[in-house]
Amino acid sequence: MEIGFIGVGRMGKAMARNIMKAGHRVRAWDKSAAALAEIRKDGAQIATSARDAFGGDAVISMLPNDDIMRELFIDGDVLPRDGSATVHVNTATASVAFTEELAAFHAERRVPYISATVFGRPEMAAERNLNILAAGDPQAIERVQPIFDAMGKKTWRLGNEPRSSNVAKVAGNLMVACILEAMGEAAALARAYKMSPVEVLDIVVNSVFHVPIYRIYAGLIGNATYEPPGFDLMLGLKDAKLALEAGEDVHVPLPFASVLRDNYLDAIAHGDAGKDWSAIAKVAARRAGLES
Amino acid sequence: MEIGFIGVGRMGKAMARNIMKAGHRVRAWDKSAAALAEIRKDGAQIATSARDAFGGDAVISMLPNDDIMRELFIDGDVLPRDGSATVHVNTATASVAFTEELAAFHAERRVPYISATVFGRPEMAAERNLNILAAGDPQAIERVQPIFDAMGKKTWRLGNEPRSSNVAKVAGNLMVACILEAMGEAAALARAYKMSPVEVLDIVVNSVFHVPIYRIYAGLIGNATYEPPGFDLMLGLKDAKLALEAGEDVHVPLPFASVLRDNYLDAIAHGDAGKDWSAIAKVAARRAGLES
Amino acid sequence: MEIGFIGVGRMGKAMARNIMKAGHRVRAWDKSAAALAEIRKDGAQIATSARDAFGGDAVISMLPNDDIMRELFIDGDVLPRDGSATVHVNTATASVAFTEELAAFHAERRVPYISATVFGRPEMAAERNLNILAAGDPQAIERVQPIFDAMGKKTWRLGNEPRSSNVAKVAGNLMVACILEAMGEAAALARAYKMSPVEVLDIVVNSVFHVPIYRIYAGLIGNATYEPPGFDLMLGLKDAKLALEAGEDVHVPLPFASVLRDNYLDAIAHGDAGKDWSAIAKVAARRAGLES
Amino acid sequence: MEIGFIGVGRMGKAMARNIMKAGHRVRAWDKSAAALAEIRKDGAQIATSARDAFGGDAVISMLPNDDIMRELFIDGDVLPRDGSATVHVNTATASVAFTEELAAFHAERRVPYISATVFGRPEMAAERNLNILAAGDPQAIERVQPIFDAMGKKTWRLGNEPRSSNVAKVAGNLMVACILEAMGEAAALARAYKMSPVEVLDIVVNSVFHVPIYRIYAGLIGNATYEPPGFDLMLGLKDAKLALEAGEDVHVPLPFASVLRDNYLDAIAHGDAGKDWSAIAKVAARRAGLES
Repeated sequence: MEIGFIGVGRMGKAMARNIMKAGHRVRAWDKSAAALAEIRKDGAQIATSARDAFGGDAVISMLPNDDIMRELFIDGDVLPRDGSATVHVNTATASVAFTEELAAFHAERRVPYISATVFGRPEMAAERNLNILAAGDPQAIERVQPIFDAMGKKTWRLGNEPRSSNVAKVAGNLMVACILEAMGEAAALARAYKMSPVEVLDIVVNSVFHVPIYRIYAGLIGNATYEPPGFDLMLGLKDAKLALEAGEDVHVPLPFASVLRDNYLDAIAHGDAGKDWSAIAKVAARRAGLES
Repeated sequence: MEIGFIGVGRMGKAMARNIMKAGHRVRAWDKSAAALAEIRKDGAQIATSARDAFGGDAVISMLPNDDIMRELFIDGDVLPRDGSATVHVNTATASVAFTEELAAFHAERRVPYISATVFGRPEMAAERNLNILAAGDPQAIERVQPIFDAMGKKTWRLGNEPRSSNVAKVAGNLMVACILEAMGEAAALARAYKMSPVEVLDIVVNSVFHVPIYRIYAGLIGNATYEPPGFDLMLGLKDAKLALEAGEDVHVPLPFASVLRDNYLDAIAHGDAGKDWSAIAKVAARRAGLES
Repeated sequence: MEIGFIGVGRMGKAMARNIMKAGHRVRAWDKSAAALAEIRKDGAQIATSARDAFGGDAVISMLPNDDIMRELFIDGDVLPRDGSATVHVNTATASVAFTEELAAFHAERRVPYISATVFGRPEMAAERNLNILAAGDPQAIERVQPIFDAMGKKTWRLGNEPRSSNVAKVAGNLMVACILEAMGEAAALARAYKMSPVEVLDIVVNSVFHVPIYRIYAGLIGNATYEPPGFDLMLGLKDAKLALEAGEDVHVPLPFASVLRDNYLDAIAHGDAGKDWSAIAKVAARRAGLES
Repeated sequence: MEIGFIGVGRMGKAMARNIMKAGHRVRAWDKSAAALAEIRKDGAQIATSARDAFGGDAVISMLPNDDIMRELFIDGDVLPRDGSATVHVNTATASVAFTEELAAFHAERRVPYISATVFGRPEMAAERNLNILAAGDPQAIERVQPIFDAMGKKTWRLGNEPRSSNVAKVAGNLMVACILEAMGEAAALARAYKMSPVEVLDIVVNSVFHVPIYRIYAGLIGNATYEPPGFDLMLGLKDAKLALEAGEDVHVPLPFASVLRDNYLDAIAHGDAGKDWSAIAKVAARRAGLES
């Protein structure tokens, strides 16, 4: 296939290379001449402008933020004005609100638009180890599937609304960031008690952070089935308090644990004391007006 | 070996059974007659009191909270008054402060004391699938290692201070609880955008929650090596803001995301903008007075 | 009147002096000999023990924490065993739970018990400027009213349950502490923009922190009358976001503002966007299961 | 003086009326014909456009948000292109970042620009009871001072940077919003203990929320003088815990109290246990990188 590629930074470069390795042709553009020189060595054609790169079967974009995407695709002259058969596949983590705006603008210009955010860091992109979250017109996704296969190990399809890809990506990143903060709080607690944070995190990761546990909890929360409890909310509250007390004695603030405590109380005040502690998810839902 | 067992509720019962399966003898006590009747069927002897169960090579206790442990082991007459060779192995999730008190009291009475909290739910205890965190006198741990082998799949040794077991346990539970809250926030976000929370959590768990990622991050945070960045803090802040904005548009409060945002700002204010986003762990440490 | 006084530290001493100035006799006890020597100079008799001080028409206690009160009044032999006419007036900020325990214990011993926490720092106690929150048996309160008049400028009566005094005291202290944190966040914001925190706080305190505003808001929240709005919740959310953005640009974490943002979203998700911004109080109530 | 007035909604109308009462002439514009009809009855001239209203000695603007201001003053043709003697006095609560942009744009066009945010609700504007926070070129402020005198009871001057007015306004609103949340938490606590929230808030407001206390604390925090302590941080932590425990027993989440607890621990971990509890402000400053 003939593929345009806009944005060949660390992520984009790794993805473009894999597309070429799979036998497709890439015509790349980037505002950095150095980035273009590098991808040219890998065999890509160099476009003279973003507008010039926007052609062929599909154009992949991987740009750093909303402002740059707005400048090119909405305020700029990159998008064809009279419709096109070229599918625009945006792999960047745009905001949900801006994705809606982009999708509407492409519809107006009659240019097929797919949002295809990815999970994976540059090393994983290089190893063709990305998870791709594709959302938008299913026929357009079907047409570019060979490109997704060239770039990632799995494509998840999330329906017709491009923004769904961004919601899932944003939610996933939030969860990883929460883990990092939680690890940080655990490491501070360990250090304050003169223990090795390496050792404590090692134990926890190897004991409890294995995939099956998360599959189980994701199922309980996703399906909202909190009974019978494996470990109930009152025990969850007790454990949150143990962490808070342990931190208090050695002067370690634990803001996540504080939020957990408040949420357990909220859950208990609403009659969920005897449900599984994953029922803390009901609090987030109720506060968003989602529990009837 | 001859083993006393105090507290044969759901967890204790499963553990006692595995000890017997491995060929040891168990003499059990519980305040519930029904629990005792059940473990008797499995072949255990029944003690007439907690005091009566406290004997043999080791006594394992698995009790629900500090108050009950205080009543038996400190205010009660369960502990021998003139020293003993029986090792007391406390597997309950006692608080860190109370564990220090228990350890001191056992030392005074010259009764060997091991804190051995466990990671695992009752099903895992039944399958001999527990991770055991043993801390206390190494010789005493050595003596009861066959019992640990009978109950769990792995014993982690955490040094001479019994409380270290409880700090690690409390920290691990805090991390799991944080994940559950994070999943709850992600699910609320998905639902507010009319997406399936099952599908979104499924994608995230299968894409990014696999062990290697956590091993990597646990190493970065444990060893405090945040450079070169794989994904830097400014991008972390950007992602936290994407989540907050996405939530705002559909009225989803995201308290963890709010804490993350504040912590990224704290990190950036201290010069860490260009470090890996796992450097958010420095904030928790600095606030606890642990960064020099 | 004949008054026993247990605990003549900074607060207790100032209160005992005013009682004597009003013509009553004081018999004092404190574990500190220095504190006793000082109050003796002011004309007090010195008791030989807390038990010895517990007599006369009423005994006032002003002790630093639950543990010390437990040691004296529950585990110790201070309370008469066979009932007494002496009213025990506890002015310390005991916890709500411990106050219930104390009240029950006094009832068992047939000793009248009044909880009378106070608002005011030592200087205010010295100036007879305390606000006294009295709760317990109304007849007992009536008997000791002359002593309250000698110590404070106003006595608020809070019904028959002694703990009500402690709930109100704890709630009031929480509100003051929140103001201090809010001032701290405002001062950090001012400094980060190179402004004088003295000047900014001075303006705010003199412009908006005057009593009438708080009387108005306390009335709205206390009576739950949020319509018509003076300033609506959407504007409240807008303002919270302005603060968060202003902080973000200069790297100032604002945890209270983050909590406010989440609570405004919660309120909006429950249909309160057009109500007065004081309707944020509905969120706290709903989360506690108090909104039907 | 000849005054243009852009935006005569509830606040703007009250302000414009007082300007006319003081003997000045007003030429008003608003996108709402109804609003214009009303102000015309009060004696104002009606401008044909915002551009037409922008003239005379000064133009006052009072518009609801950044987007509308951007549309008129930056993207629109309201501002004179070749400089003007008319001072633009913007009284709206614009964001800090947008105020910087507005100020720069006015400088480019050589139109004097004053940011003059106000504290006060519409009733207070009607009673000429506003506090006006003026920031920008001192000579321009001097020229429009008679207009400020006609609208408010006091003008505070905040230096040459227009944005300083907005920082102070945003900080002040944050503080009021924090009070409302704190009142909401206190009211929930009272209700959960079957007490009257009206009564509890009444006591607290009348006992402790009087101006002198806030003057004192604003001085301590503004000047960062936390010694000697009037009430120290350890006592602050104790009180935060009393509130958390009281809430826990009746299932009342208290997110502000949770943040306070974490901040006290942070302060204590940095050696401030013996300082006045207003030293919690050091935590906000330190987290923002402002403590050396």
